Amino acid sequence: MFTLPQKDSGTPTTSPGSVSTQGLHSNRGDGLEREGSRKPDQKPLKLYGVGDPTAMFFSDSPYLSSRGSTIKWFWDSAEEGYRTYHMDEYDEDENPSGIINLGTSENKLCFDLLSRRLSQSDMLRVEPSLLQYPDWRGHLFLREEVARFLSFYCRSPAPLKPENVVVLNGCASLFSALATVLCEVGEAFLIPAPYYGAITQHVYLYGNVRLVCVYLESEVTGLETRPFQLTVEKLEMALAGANSEGVKVKGLILINPQNPLGDVYSPGELQEYLKFAKRHELHVMVDEVYMLSVFEESVGYHSVLSLERLPDPQRTHVMWATSKDFGMSGLRFGTLYTENQDVATAVSSLCRYHGLSGLVQYQMAQLLRDRDWINQVYLPENHARLKAAHTYVSEELRALGIPFVSRGAGFFIWVDLRKYLPAATSEEEMLLWRRFLDNKVLLSFGQAFECKEPGWFRLVFSDKTHRLRLGMQRVRRVLEGKSQVAEDAPSC
Amino acid sequence: MFTLPQKDSGTPTTSPGSVSTQGLHSNRGDGLEREGSRKPDQKPLKLYGVGDPTAMFFSDSPYLSSRGSTIKWFWDSAEEGYRTYHMDEYDEDENPSGIINLGTSENKLCFDLLSRRLSQSDMLRVEPSLLQYPDWRGHLFLREEVARFLSFYCRSPAPLKPENVVVLNGCASLFSALATVLCEVGEAFLIPAPYYGAITQHVYLYGNVRLVCVYLESEVTGLETRPFQLTVEKLEMALAGANSEGVKVKGLILINPQNPLGDVYSPGELQEYLKFAKRHELHVMVDEVYMLSVFEESVGYHSVLSLERLPDPQRTHVMWATSKDFGMSGLRFGTLYTENQDVATAVSSLCRYHGLSGLVQYQMAQLLRDRDWINQVYLPENHARLKAAHTYVSEELRALGIPFVSRGAGFFIWVDLRKYLPAATSEEEMLLWRRFLDNKVLLSFGQAFECKEPGWFRLVFSDKTHRLRLGMQRVRRVLEGKSQVAEDAPSC
Repeated sequence: MFTLPQKDSGTPTTSPGSVSTQGLHSNRGDGLEREGSRKPDQKPLKLYGVGDPTAMFFSDSPYLSSRGSTIKWFWDSAEEGYRTYHMDEYDEDENPSGIINLGTSENKLCFDLLSRRLSQSDMLRVEPSLLQYPDWRGHLFLREEVARFLSFYCRSPAPLKPENVVVLNGCASLFSALATVLCEVGEAFLIPAPYYGAITQHVYLYGNVRLVCVYLESEVTGLETRPFQLTVEKLEMALAGANSEGVKVKGLILINPQNPLGDVYSPGELQEYLKFAKRHELHVMVDEVYMLSVFEESVGYHSVLSLERLPDPQRTHVMWATSKDFGMSGLRFGTLYTENQDVATAVSSLCRYHGLSGLVQYQMAQLLRDRDWINQVYLPENHARLKAAHTYVSEELRALGIPFVSRGAGFFIWVDLRKYLPAATSEEEMLLWRRFLDNKVLLSFGQAFECKEPGWFRLVFSDKTHRLRLGMQRVRRVLEGKSQVAEDAPSC
Repeated sequence: MFTLPQKDSGTPTTSPGSVSTQGLHSNRGDGLEREGSRKPDQKPLKLYGVGDPTAMFFSDSPYLSSRGSTIKWFWDSAEEGYRTYHMDEYDEDENPSGIINLGTSENKLCFDLLSRRLSQSDMLRVEPSLLQYPDWRGHLFLREEVARFLSFYCRSPAPLKPENVVVLNGCASLFSALATVLCEVGEAFLIPAPYYGAITQHVYLYGNVRLVCVYLESEVTGLETRPFQLTVEKLEMALAGANSEGVKVKGLILINPQNPLGDVYSPGELQEYLKFAKRHELHVMVDEVYMLSVFEESVGYHSVLSLERLPDPQRTHVMWATSKDFGMSGLRFGTLYTENQDVATAVSSLCRYHGLSGLVQYQMAQLLRDRDWINQVYLPENHARLKAAHTYVSEELRALGIPFVSRGAGFFIWVDLRKYLPAATSEEEMLLWRRFLDNKVLLSFGQAFECKEPGWFRLVFSDKTHRLRLGMQRVRRVLEGKSQVAEDAPSC
């Protein structure tokens, strides 16, 4: 877990993106669940923030460069929760009082299916070409398979091309490479917040690229909006704000399905965001790592690659990986799809540092081409299990009277625990997080996603029933205790 | 293939490292073969050079940052020879007139042994922990195995420790990570040249770290020296020269066994270099990727980890990989050993971008722990095959009257073709290289290793007999033709 300070900037209240203070609305028809409203003592939210990842620490090693110390700091601080967890991991038999991890976004529901498929004899092929230096873009047989796979599952209007595919060891590496080849040091990408916080490191550690947060808010401001709704007005506002501070913005990062909101963008919304980017000559990196993890049939998911016409295809770069959709974050396989050959080549040049084994490339090609297994076995079962787990947790939350945002995609529910904070501060959010951890359940707090409303938590539900059940019991125990504290607080 | 310009600096002729112009001596007793002497028209060699990888190109893409264009340029230019090769690869049956690759340092002699071992059923294990997010330093079971493996094969005086091991996807990545965490932008590492030229990119593309070449020369200057001998005087000279130019040097890179010289450092030499580094508080990165590829029994190889006492253990970082010693450059497995926990942690933090699959980590642990196979099957057979191939090529070279440097380690012979150049220029070296390529044999020219004496080539011999034989026939054909040109040249 780590948090970064954001340099906030005042913005004129008359601007299109200024904050409304009207009451929140429940919006169940949209698949979202909300209740409660902003407390009277809450301040108006900031509209954007330019990240400065170096602000919180100082060089502390005689052996490292200043950036080396920064890099080490990210490790030390990011690992706090996970170190505690790894020292005391829950195990049904050997450590039943250990920590349940509802913080890491991994799908632990389908290891049985995956183990069976990956253990089949067709997965172990060793031939000289796989042991020799590869084409750093990825072996052609794999890029061909990826192009076919994405054509099919993204429903592209025309077949996608292998020459537009670059293969590497995960989307973390891809963010790092794209940041470096698209931006100079100190330049920035826009990103709607809350967002998957690790991206801060991915673009900064090697690339020295910053993120400009486009802060979204939970409050529903109109009939057509939903909580944490991204609008072009907010994008424009954040871009103008960053420009006014002299920060050069080179791109926009979209996560679709969104992490941590579990939300998906409609084709119309996507088009609007892409047109905004085109107007300002911004690259758009669309992270679609959860695209096959839309488990609610009623949610119509549309990959950016399904659009009939991209406003600016030379600046539209799509990311996908097996980490989430195939529940294999340890497999380290990710891919870029871009029509821009300069970008593809520059990223490929960096792939010397992001390469994956020829043996794994062979395995991934085998997996992606096995449509029978994917369509008949894996996806239906995975979606059914995700849905069941999601139903269990959301019902538990309802029973506790806790509002949440979730729309049927991804592995997590974005949970509103604001009413359990004695004051709407990040310190109180952190205290509640620690209380969960002390009670042996690891969640992710909103600060880690740059959420500006203290009290939101991401709760990962894609785990086995016995762990979920125990985890939710512990959550309940904390909240019931914490609730009393919160209610007691005013009398102090 | 790529070359980078070096900013040369004049150095006082009275300094300890100044260049002797005395004649070259053959030094057969040292296992080295040399003949001929410097031509009268050759200029004294430069002693060092500070690299400036950005000097040769300009930004040429509206989509990329300036560093992105640099990164793309490295890809475009580095691929020239290999692109030609890959478009016309030799195949015994399907393309017998295709290009033979004696340029890439890969061991193609043992795919049969490797395929058999890696195809055994113990190599395919799929369990949840291998599919989940790993410890970015590498799974503990693998780091334990690496520590045991290095303790044994490096003959360390005390058992090495898993906590000092970091595992990642190859030494290219390790150079990138070390450069970034040890240096600020624009700082430098010393490196004796000729050296494996790709390191220029590895420390520059992400890290923006430069190399200061310590130029070695072929001429033998004393009884105790050998061609391209590295001395502390030369290191001191280069360091002082870089300092005088305001270039901050943070470390020294040693490759042992050396690439492209095939040379090894004695324990005494190693100690001297390490003490030099300690005096100046320089980190030492010792690249030992060929440590098990010492095929000549008479060569006593000593890993830096075998030394009884390291002068500065907190600044000594050892690199090893399976790419060379296990002939698997496509497997992407490398490892760092360092006692410095700050460095280990900072590198680990970057390992998010250099991770390798859990399945491969399992395979590598299985391989490294199989001492019976390594000691009884793989190493003896590999060494015998390397030796036979080396014998064949070196006898061919002797028959052609070509001097060379080779000492029984690595996959290459460093060949002196200076007498085939009409003039001692890098342009003539390039012309000869192209003539080889036109005659369907790919070699590596000296400029790619920052060799300051035009006319040296690296010839890789670790290939199957039929390809070696054909490759050497083509080399002979070019040289016999070229030889006439060279002899004719003075009459023009």
